[in-house]
Amino acid sequence: MNIKIVLKIVGTVLFWESILMMPSLIISAVDGSYEVKAFIIAILLCGIFGLLFKNIKTNENEMRKREGYASVALCWLVMSLAGALPFYISGSIPSYIDALFETASGFTTTGSSILTDIEGMPRGLLFWRSFTHWIGGMGVLVFTMALAPLLGARSVFLMRAESPGPTFGKLVPKLSNSSKILYIIYASMTAAMVVLLVMAGMPVFDSFIHAFGTAGTGGFSNKALSIGAYNSILINWIIIFGMLSFGVNFALYYLLLTRGNFKNVFKIFKNEEFRLYSSYVLISIFLVFLNVLHVFDYDIIKALTHSAFAVSTVVSTTGYVTADFNLWPMFSKAILVTLMLFGACAGSTGGGMKSIRILVLFKTLIHEIKHTIHPNSVQTIRIDGKPVDDDTIKSILIFFFAYVIIIIFAVLIVSLDNFDFQTSLTAVIATISNIGPGLGDVGPVGNFADFSNISKIVFTMCMIVGRLEILPVLVLFSSSIWKKH
Amino acid sequence: MNIKIVLKIVGTVLFWESILMMPSLIISAVDGSYEVKAFIIAILLCGIFGLLFKNIKTNENEMRKREGYASVALCWLVMSLAGALPFYISGSIPSYIDALFETASGFTTTGSSILTDIEGMPRGLLFWRSFTHWIGGMGVLVFTMALAPLLGARSVFLMRAESPGPTFGKLVPKLSNSSKILYIIYASMTAAMVVLLVMAGMPVFDSFIHAFGTAGTGGFSNKALSIGAYNSILINWIIIFGMLSFGVNFALYYLLLTRGNFKNVFKIFKNEEFRLYSSYVLISIFLVFLNVLHVFDYDIIKALTHSAFAVSTVVSTTGYVTADFNLWPMFSKAILVTLMLFGACAGSTGGGMKSIRILVLFKTLIHEIKHTIHPNSVQTIRIDGKPVDDDTIKSILIFFFAYVIIIIFAVLIVSLDNFDFQTSLTAVIATISNIGPGLGDVGPVGNFADFSNISKIVFTMCMIVGRLEILPVLVLFSSSIWKKH
Repeated sequence: MNIKIVLKIVGTVLFWESILMMPSLIISAVDGSYEVKAFIIAILLCGIFGLLFKNIKTNENEMRKREGYASVALCWLVMSLAGALPFYISGSIPSYIDALFETASGFTTTGSSILTDIEGMPRGLLFWRSFTHWIGGMGVLVFTMALAPLLGARSVFLMRAESPGPTFGKLVPKLSNSSKILYIIYASMTAAMVVLLVMAGMPVFDSFIHAFGTAGTGGFSNKALSIGAYNSILINWIIIFGMLSFGVNFALYYLLLTRGNFKNVFKIFKNEEFRLYSSYVLISIFLVFLNVLHVFDYDIIKALTHSAFAVSTVVSTTGYVTADFNLWPMFSKAILVTLMLFGACAGSTGGGMKSIRILVLFKTLIHEIKHTIHPNSVQTIRIDGKPVDDDTIKSILIFFFAYVIIIIFAVLIVSLDNFDFQTSLTAVIATISNIGPGLGDVGPVGNFADFSNISKIVFTMCMIVGRLEILPVLVLFSSSIWKKH
Repeated sequence: MNIKIVLKIVGTVLFWESILMMPSLIISAVDGSYEVKAFIIAILLCGIFGLLFKNIKTNENEMRKREGYASVALCWLVMSLAGALPFYISGSIPSYIDALFETASGFTTTGSSILTDIEGMPRGLLFWRSFTHWIGGMGVLVFTMALAPLLGARSVFLMRAESPGPTFGKLVPKLSNSSKILYIIYASMTAAMVVLLVMAGMPVFDSFIHAFGTAGTGGFSNKALSIGAYNSILINWIIIFGMLSFGVNFALYYLLLTRGNFKNVFKIFKNEEFRLYSSYVLISIFLVFLNVLHVFDYDIIKALTHSAFAVSTVVSTTGYVTADFNLWPMFSKAILVTLMLFGACAGSTGGGMKSIRILVLFKTLIHEIKHTIHPNSVQTIRIDGKPVDDDTIKSILIFFFAYVIIIIFAVLIVSLDNFDFQTSLTAVIATISNIGPGLGDVGPVGNFADFSNISKIVFTMCMIVGRLEILPVLVLFSSSIWKKH
């Protein structure tokens, strides 16, 4: 591997991180709060080391798959390591492992927390904590939509929403251009969220916090009760639509934006991944609604709002909370855990396995059954009418295995802390699928504070592994990549 | 599909089932117990309908994949439906769904039970209950080792232990010959179990019961406390070695039998599946032992025996019990649940996903990582030095997805009964992997009696799906197979 080029990329990202810390520093300074010094130190450290690595001279310019994957994995790791500094230096989170967990949870847009007293934290740090969601969400969009296709990742071609129109790659040949378009869509949608939340009566600071968390499908709130604290049906539904929208493939928004006539809107509803995603969202809301109606004393509005919220928060992998679904009947909990695994659409800020993969997996299984019955018939698996090649199918099948086996191994390690079965398993699923809360002790009213440091490191790794869709991190950990060339 | 040929096969099996009920009838008659009439009616019904279908005239003799798979799935279903009759007609199990659950649990060698008063059941019925394990174990051996290869099932070639020597198919060209050899090995090993257990002080009737359960890796006992009732370290270890031995690929025994010189014994230890299986058994025993040492007040012999028993019973998918591992620390429980999923070797009477598949899956994942780092290098996945072709790998990857997704859907339905998370999930895993007990309410001291009929039907389907390694059952349920031709 060409380590120089990897360090150069990591340096650039670190440099940008120091700049991205500045808004938080300004808020801290305005508030005259104790963490100002911590931000200054963190900004200086990131800036200096960033500049140092950024300016490494490298002869080769070509980036191969291995350098690409390794830099992406290292970027998320280093950003989390550096982003944890303000929390740690200020003493606001006394354990560095805890601070790292919280920051990785931010950048990976997970939203799992070790904080037990959220309201006691200064605004500057709360802003930084939520801003990491927003940065992470943007990073993921750029990674999956613009960078991964350039690296020639096998399965990503599916994420580019081939059917409704041309791909990003074809439209805008340069990486920076694709990224710019994504920035604009992402920023505009976030701004719309802020405006809507303010209009619905949420304080301005809180609106920014929750818009960041919704955009990145992260889930950090500045309230211990999360969205439940506002006790407003209107705010709940704004967040529901926000979370679901940020779980949609951004390529569809791009098409809507550039070719937004009625014909194209219709085409978008024909996109198979979008249809699968909408179907399981609607069916799940309906089933959970029926299942929890008695929990809310047959108050239909209340039951529907909380069902829709729980399903949306989980399927979009955000993690905001309005009701403690840990207390709901097992059927609802089983639906929510299933949605945690499935997750949102590819090319969104959401996590999980992604609808498109679930779609391909089911089509592959049905194909296998048909092939057994009619061995001589030649059929092809198609998505949106276009054939999916064998290598892509195989890599998705391998992805599924890797996802499940990583969950199993993570549960094995985490179970040393002797939490119950439900807590141990859903804590791992909640982190690898970038949800936030799970069930049991890590349910909507719980948190990850009581786990051991080893488990917290495992959870941190799960968050990054899940966020980067496994392969980049496994590549980073394989010994052969560290050899020269 | 040629339905006539399928009915003919099912009829033959039904006819044989009536004959196989006779030993149980004799025991009932000797005991002068109330279920004699029930056995006579069941034998007559099976015999008459068996003969009726057995003698169907069919012009075509060729059996294609679809007929093969459909008959196998139907055989297990019909055998269970018919085998439930003695329990139901005698009134010993008043609900037919319960009787079906218990019998399917027998024939699939699962060992999950709905009985709450085992000791209150007459010996004839207890014998039949355990004998279904023995028949089922034999059936599975014949199916995976002799029948499936003839049907050209893609993934089975791995189960024939290619490396240590020639396959069954090559050695004995005729299906009936392969089967005969399997009968002999299976029956001799069972007889050895009976002798050893009697010598260790177990009553003769009980020895037969537990030898049947061990041979089929089933797990039905005639004692509520299972093997724990005998409170004998010696009996525990005999059962441990028995269970582990019946979890080994029978092709290896064949080779040992026919070419049993030292060179070949050595070769068997080089078999990759056998090595993986032994490794995870030994490592698991060691880890569980360390983890439960304090539970047994640091009594090393006791802790080691119960750890070895729990690991063996779960990995071989038998389900006998000496200690309530539901009360053990979460780490041990996580190991046991993982072993439930992995299961024993292919070509054994054990269930689960099978070691060989786990081996291929890991090799495939590692191959994918290496391929990402070095896209131009050409590598092949090998088992025992021989390359595994792409279609086989793909079918194993699809198998893994199907296994997990069936678990998820089964949990969704079963969760309507509102048992807790741990119970709902492990009940499904325990049935699809043909283990017997799970954790929580279906743990070693619990049973499946309190589930609803819908759940019991789901569990019954899981047992058959798991036993037949998914595809035959899915083929049976696909609509296109019922069309003519």
